[in-house]
Amino acid sequence: MKNILTASQWDKKSLKNLFKMTDRMKSLVERRGGDDSLKHKVMTALFYESSTRTSSSFIAAMQRLGGSVIPITQGIEFSSVSKGETFYDSLRTLEQYSDVIVVRHPETGLIESTAPHIKTPIISAGSGSGEHPTQSLLDLYTIKQRFGSIDGLKIAFVGDITNGRTIHSLTTLLNLYDTEISYVSPTSLQWNGDNGDRYDKIEDVIHDVDVLYMTRIQSERMDKSDYDKVKGYYNLTPETMKLAKEDMIVMHPFPRVNEIDVEVDNDPRAWYFRQIESGLFIRMALLKLLLKPEREFKFSILKQG
Amino acid sequence: MKNILTASQWDKKSLKNLFKMTDRMKSLVERRGGDDSLKHKVMTALFYESSTRTSSSFIAAMQRLGGSVIPITQGIEFSSVSKGETFYDSLRTLEQYSDVIVVRHPETGLIESTAPHIKTPIISAGSGSGEHPTQSLLDLYTIKQRFGSIDGLKIAFVGDITNGRTIHSLTTLLNLYDTEISYVSPTSLQWNGDNGDRYDKIEDVIHDVDVLYMTRIQSERMDKSDYDKVKGYYNLTPETMKLAKEDMIVMHPFPRVNEIDVEVDNDPRAWYFRQIESGLFIRMALLKLLLKPEREFKFSILKQG
Amino acid sequence: MKNILTASQWDKKSLKNLFKMTDRMKSLVERRGGDDSLKHKVMTALFYESSTRTSSSFIAAMQRLGGSVIPITQGIEFSSVSKGETFYDSLRTLEQYSDVIVVRHPETGLIESTAPHIKTPIISAGSGSGEHPTQSLLDLYTIKQRFGSIDGLKIAFVGDITNGRTIHSLTTLLNLYDTEISYVSPTSLQWNGDNGDRYDKIEDVIHDVDVLYMTRIQSERMDKSDYDKVKGYYNLTPETMKLAKEDMIVMHPFPRVNEIDVEVDNDPRAWYFRQIESGLFIRMALLKLLLKPEREFKFSILKQG
Repeated sequence: MKNILTASQWDKKSLKNLFKMTDRMKSLVERRGGDDSLKHKVMTALFYESSTRTSSSFIAAMQRLGGSVIPITQGIEFSSVSKGETFYDSLRTLEQYSDVIVVRHPETGLIESTAPHIKTPIISAGSGSGEHPTQSLLDLYTIKQRFGSIDGLKIAFVGDITNGRTIHSLTTLLNLYDTEISYVSPTSLQWNGDNGDRYDKIEDVIHDVDVLYMTRIQSERMDKSDYDKVKGYYNLTPETMKLAKEDMIVMHPFPRVNEIDVEVDNDPRAWYFRQIESGLFIRMALLKLLLKPEREFKFSILKQG
Repeated sequence: MKNILTASQWDKKSLKNLFKMTDRMKSLVERRGGDDSLKHKVMTALFYESSTRTSSSFIAAMQRLGGSVIPITQGIEFSSVSKGETFYDSLRTLEQYSDVIVVRHPETGLIESTAPHIKTPIISAGSGSGEHPTQSLLDLYTIKQRFGSIDGLKIAFVGDITNGRTIHSLTTLLNLYDTEISYVSPTSLQWNGDNGDRYDKIEDVIHDVDVLYMTRIQSERMDKSDYDKVKGYYNLTPETMKLAKEDMIVMHPFPRVNEIDVEVDNDPRAWYFRQIESGLFIRMALLKLLLKPEREFKFSILKQG
Repeated sequence: MKNILTASQWDKKSLKNLFKMTDRMKSLVERRGGDDSLKHKVMTALFYESSTRTSSSFIAAMQRLGGSVIPITQGIEFSSVSKGETFYDSLRTLEQYSDVIVVRHPETGLIESTAPHIKTPIISAGSGSGEHPTQSLLDLYTIKQRFGSIDGLKIAFVGDITNGRTIHSLTTLLNLYDTEISYVSPTSLQWNGDNGDRYDKIEDVIHDVDVLYMTRIQSERMDKSDYDKVKGYYNLTPETMKLAKEDMIVMHPFPRVNEIDVEVDNDPRAWYFRQIESGLFIRMALLKLLLKPEREFKFSILKQG
């Protein structure tokens, strides 16, 4: 069984292979929109928490490879799957119809503990406040696309370091390479698990970084009075961008609230929409690897999962 | 960039081209169900207001041309796209995955003001109480199908002339031709923008018209006491139909409440279900024109948008 | 017009033909995932009551045959189709876009009474507390797959015999053959329409049956005090399974609450996930028969409907 569940299941070699396939997917979409390589394959998109961005990305990815989708992505809170049936039973049911199941669930760790009991490949599209592995893969791919190599880069994460699962997962991947990581957050939103330098202001780091990774402060994960203290703490403007290097990039996992001014969108260093587009290519590559493994990937791509 | 946003972007020549393509789509569906001309293209259907009729029509249109669909059509009120993210950010995100975005939004004018900032073609599927351009195109196509030519026809609109956006948009298109338009409504539901004659009762006009265009009185756009005064004001029955010409047609944009008796459905002059079917053909034609423009349409089809 | 509305529209000959086609579908999926035989056909899945299991099964069935799907399966309670429009008008609308409509509705008998007025084939996916014909067909196919023949088998239904529509419909089909049926339920959940023997405990019948058909006690169809008396009345465990014959099977229409221990899943006699999988094959066969009837089925398959 092969699943995509965690950032930590990847090593440098498997990432290299994945990114080679992702490059092929990017070129395929740009040249022809897609192909028929996953024809007659069915992907179930099972989202217990709505996430239009992630579910749409997976749906487009499957369809551009000629596959079909069972979309269970909207209003599932009200549906029978979530009532009176265990998560295990729902997956055991849906695997009878599907070649792969993409699943997001609000309970941290539930996907990881259930997936081993399911024969059909499972791709985690977000596991509570824990892992969101395809996000960190697309993040890393975006960086690789821009700089060619990851080694030697300086990356600063800005915002909610405590609750930012994309930050934690991407840190795991970046630590495979020789990178310098710093974390910029209000004191109340630091993260004990980090190994990087800590700062308070964007201005403390922006002149020096290759990647400025902005994140949203997640009001849903703290109480209102705490949120009021930190909301609007960071706001990247064209003014601030003047302090940054010419060849750096700004990333953001989206949605943004007001961390990045819309006017920054026109700056060529604003790479967050390209980052979203990379999500399509990464997910196409993952689907291809799970459903149509070719010789080159067969043995090397996945260490575990 | 090419968008479908308003009835006023069409002139007689571009309509002629559109209807020629629509005829081809009708014939295609009748002979073979569809083709593969939009294979590997992805359409996002993004409905901030549920509209099963319109969204289903677009979905079928794309699929009958071999394309794929990301369906964001149900329960979006509860989803992340509509929470904490601007409409602009949502469109900028979805365009990374899509070749065309079909969008309905309850805020009048928002689609029109945002579309110019998006690279991907946008088709408006309804913009608040304002434009619903594909509805007026399918209406006009239905009339053309029946009578061959629009010039010389007498059309009466019945019902809620104040709030009927389909009436306003279709009037715009009919005014390109030599037609005689009249409006039948309670005094409280007249429309200042009209140029036609005003009547109070269906019986005042039915003996003379080629097209009797019935509409629903929209309870959601007035308060209850006003609605109670006018609800059930119009009710087309087989009896009333005896007063109409042999070769006229009855249309309705649906849903109907009780403006038209179910018994009228069997009258060969009841063209409202054909009208709904025309929506499929018009939308196929529009998708084809935006996504696969052929030489004949390339320069002539769209004046602006 | 050809519809799938009731278990009673089938006879032994038409079932034999259906099952032959179902065998072909099973083999197709196992060998190649699917084919393109329903390419350019569109199925609307219209679920006024959410049922992820059933809708997903139909969606996968259509897609594995190369067809497309308009999914109206989630949150429809909140959408325009269910507000201010008759069921007849909704079906008349959707048939303009579709080659077949799969529909579930909470009002018993409404689908059956409306379908004759619709030209497009209608498949009932559940009609209130009444018929759920495709469930009983997949149940019977599962039994046939295991035993080759239905004649001579002993079947026991366990649970909520009063409200179990799957029990009633499957009983109708089983009565076409030479079978022995018994019903195991608390006294309060017996069924007046049965012709079989009645028992109170699984242990009364398990040593002797070929098929033990477990069902959920449906809390939503009784008041809380009644439910409290019977909930947890049945619970099949590995211990109980020791009393069963070596070559019997356990079935369940799902979802299960606690009628069957998860540990029973590993018993080779647990056939309920295979039963779910059979739903895919049966629905593929039905779609093929309705949309692409071949000579062999043309005259024999459907007596009525």
